[in-house]
Amino acid sequence: MKVTISRKAHFNAAHRLFVKSWDDKKNESVFGKCSNQYYHGHNYELIVNVTGKVDPITGMVMDLKVLADLIKTEVEDPFDHKNLNMQVPEFADLIPSAENIAVVIYNKLIKHLDKEKTLEIILYETPKNFVKYCG
Amino acid sequence: MKVTISRKAHFNAAHRLFVKSWDDKKNESVFGKCSNQYYHGHNYELIVNVTGKVDPITGMVMDLKVLADLIKTEVEDPFDHKNLNMQVPEFADLIPSAENIAVVIYNKLIKHLDKEKTLEIILYETPKNFVKYCG
Amino acid sequence: MKVTISRKAHFNAAHRLFVKSWDDKKNESVFGKCSNQYYHGHNYELIVNVTGKVDPITGMVMDLKVLADLIKTEVEDPFDHKNLNMQVPEFADLIPSAENIAVVIYNKLIKHLDKEKTLEIILYETPKNFVKYCG
Amino acid sequence: MKVTISRKAHFNAAHRLFVKSWDDKKNESVFGKCSNQYYHGHNYELIVNVTGKVDPITGMVMDLKVLADLIKTEVEDPFDHKNLNMQVPEFADLIPSAENIAVVIYNKLIKHLDKEKTLEIILYETPKNFVKYCG
Amino acid sequence: MKVTISRKAHFNAAHRLFVKSWDDKKNESVFGKCSNQYYHGHNYELIVNVTGKVDPITGMVMDLKVLADLIKTEVEDPFDHKNLNMQVPEFADLIPSAENIAVVIYNKLIKHLDKEKTLEIILYETPKNFVKYCG
Amino acid sequence: MKVTISRKAHFNAAHRLFVKSWDDKKNESVFGKCSNQYYHGHNYELIVNVTGKVDPITGMVMDLKVLADLIKTEVEDPFDHKNLNMQVPEFADLIPSAENIAVVIYNKLIKHLDKEKTLEIILYETPKNFVKYCG
Repeated sequence: MKVTISRKAHFNAAHRLFVKSWDDKKNESVFGKCSNQYYHGHNYELIVNVTGKVDPITGMVMDLKVLADLIKTEVEDPFDHKNLNMQVPEFADLIPSAENIAVVIYNKLIKHLDKEKTLEIILYETPKNFVKYCG
Repeated sequence: MKVTISRKAHFNAAHRLFVKSWDDKKNESVFGKCSNQYYHGHNYELIVNVTGKVDPITGMVMDLKVLADLIKTEVEDPFDHKNLNMQVPEFADLIPSAENIAVVIYNKLIKHLDKEKTLEIILYETPKNFVKYCG
Repeated sequence: MKVTISRKAHFNAAHRLFVKSWDDKKNESVFGKCSNQYYHGHNYELIVNVTGKVDPITGMVMDLKVLADLIKTEVEDPFDHKNLNMQVPEFADLIPSAENIAVVIYNKLIKHLDKEKTLEIILYETPKNFVKYCG
Repeated sequence: MKVTISRKAHFNAAHRLFVKSWDDKKNESVFGKCSNQYYHGHNYELIVNVTGKVDPITGMVMDLKVLADLIKTEVEDPFDHKNLNMQVPEFADLIPSAENIAVVIYNKLIKHLDKEKTLEIILYETPKNFVKYCG
Repeated sequence: MKVTISRKAHFNAAHRLFVKSWDDKKNESVFGKCSNQYYHGHNYELIVNVTGKVDPITGMVMDLKVLADLIKTEVEDPFDHKNLNMQVPEFADLIPSAENIAVVIYNKLIKHLDKEKTLEIILYETPKNFVKYCG
Repeated sequence: MKVTISRKAHFNAAHRLFVKSWDDKKNESVFGKCSNQYYHGHNYELIVNVTGKVDPITGMVMDLKVLADLIKTEVEDPFDHKNLNMQVPEFADLIPSAENIAVVIYNKLIKHLDKEKTLEIILYETPKNFVKYCG
C-alpha cells in the first residue's frame, strides 16, 4: 500500500539565465529579459513528493517533520535570499533554469531517503510557469 | 481515449494522532503536538480523480453530479464536522493520519465505480501538507 | 534526464451541453442546467505540460516563449471570449464538455511538438471541476 | 464591537457587453471581444461582507446559514448557469458589467438585512478583474 | 505617509460552538453540526494588518520579523494544535466563534503595538467563511 | 454610485534592502538576509484598485483595457525582470522595501487618473507578506 506524501516549501532568490560561452547578444536572443546582467528574482514555490509504504502502526509514509527539516537544511537554508548564480555552488557551472534547479533539488534530497522511496520535485518559478522532475 | 475527471470537495474535522498501545510519552515523541489529547482539527480539502473512457455521445467520463453525490454520501456526510477518532467507525482501530484517511476514502469510493474506471485520491490536511493514494 | 515544464493559460467562453439528436427533455435530464438553451460560461484555466529532455546548454526543455505563443495561437485566440458551440469549428459536431475541450486542445498542440516530447492537458472548467488528458 | 463576516459563493454565467442604442461598430470599439454577439462567460466568484454587532451570547454577527441561504435564493439560483442578458430580468435594460452585477446583487441582498448592518459586495469576473460596491 | 503591512499566519485547532446555559437541543438548533460535542476543527488562516507611518530611513512600517514573532508568541504558540474550548483560557467563558477568535487575537496583539499604529485582523475559518475586526 | 474596480498584475524583480549610510553590520542586523549584497528576488503580485462613479451607459468605472495598459507602461515594463536597486531610477536613493515600492507605484499611476477617482495599491512581496497604500 503505497501513498505519496507532499510538503510545500518556498524560497526567494535572484538568478539570471546566461550561457558563459555565448556573447551577450546570443544570450539575449535566447533568454530575453531573463538574461538581464543585473539579475531578477522569484518566489520559488517547491512541492516535494515522497512515495512509499504506509507504516501500519504510525499510519505515516515518513515523519513529516523529518522531511520538513530535510527540505530546510538542503534547500531553504542554502537557496533562500540568495543569488543562485553567484552564491549557490551547484550553479557555478550550471545555468539556474527552473528545470536545472528542480534536478539539483532532487539530487540533494534523494540521498537522504530510503531506497524503497521515490521522489518527485515540482518547482514553481512563477504561478504560471513550473516544472516537474522525478529522476 | 481515456480522460481523468476531477472533483474537489471538503470537510472540517477534529482528529488526534495516537497509538493506543503506546504510552503518552512515546505518542508525543513520535507525533508531537498532533497527539494532543484534546484533539485539534483541519479543513480537509479532497480531490477525487476518476479516469475512464469518454462517452462518445455525452462527451463525459461519468456524470459529475453522480460523482458529487457519491462524495457527499460516502465522505462529506460521515466525516464533516466530526471527530474522526471518536465518531467515524473506520478509525476506531486505525490512526487517522492523512495517509490512512486517503486510503479509507479510496476504499469507500472504489466500490461504486465501474470496473474499467481507476481512482486516485488527493487529500490536503493543510495547504502545505497533502497525500495521494491510487490503490 | 526528462523534465516536465508547465505553462498556465486561460480563456473565458460560453458553452452549452446539448446532444442534437436528443429532444430538450432528454438533454435536460442528462445535462441539467448545463443544457440551458441560452448558454452559460466559464473562466477556463488551462495547464499545458510538456515532457522532454533538458538541453544541456540552455537548461531548458523548450523555449517557454515558443510554448506560450503556441498556446496563444492555437487555444487562446480561437477560444477566448467565444461561444464554443457556435463559433469554434471543432465543436460544430462535438459536444463541448470539459473532456472534449481538453482532447481538442491536446490534438491542436501535439502537432507542433517534437516527436520525443509528450503532452498532458489539464483544464479547469471551475475551481472544483477539472479534467486531464494525455493522449 | 462590530465585526465583518464574509461568505464566498459563485455562479457561472454567460453575458455580453452591449449598448442597445449603439451600432455594432461602436460596441466593438468600446467593449472589444466582450461584445461578441454570441456571448462569452465567466465563473463569477462572489464575496458578501456583512458588518454588524457581535451577539454576546452566540458570538455571531448573524447566522451564517441564513446568509448562505439568502445568497443562494437571491443570487445563485437566479444567476447560475444563466445568460445574464437574456434570462435575468435586472439586466433587460442594464448592461451586465461586473460593476452593475455587483450593484444589482447589493440591492437584492440589502433588503433582507437588519438596518444596523452594512453590506459590501466583491465580485470577481476573472481572477485578475474584480469589483467592490458598498452602497 | 501611512502604509498597511500585512502578514499571514495559520493555526490548526479544534473547537465547538456551544452556549453552556442552553440545553443540547437549543445548541443544535442554533449551531447545527458546529455544536457536535466531540468537536470538529479548522485550518485557521490569519491575516494581521498593521497601519502606520513608513520610517524614512528603513522604508518600513515596522520590522516584519518583530511582527512575525509577536504573532507566533501571542497566537500560533497558544492556539496551534489546541482545542480552543478546553485549552485556550480566553475561551473558557467565551464561545470560540470566528468573530470572537478575531476579537481575542486583536486584543492580544494591540497591546504590543505603538499607539500610533492601527490594527486589523482577518481570520479565515474555512476558505469560504471569514471575519474581519478592527477594534 | 461609486464602485471600486481592481486589476491584478505582476512583475519579477531582484532587490536588496540596504541603507547606504550604514555599514554592512548594521544593515544585516536590521534587514537580515534581505540585505544580501548579491540580491535576492520576488514575484511581486500587484492589485490596483480604482474607485469612481459608474458610467450609466457603459456600466464601467473606467475602461479596464486603459487601466491594464497604464499598469503595463508605468509598472510592468520598467520593473519586470529588473534589479530594482540598480535599474529603476526611483530607487536610486530610496530603499526598495515593499512599502516604498507601493508608494512609488501609487505616485506613478495617480497622475494618469481623473481627479474624482481614488487609487489604492496592494503589493504582495510574497504570498505571506504584503502592503497597502492609498495616498
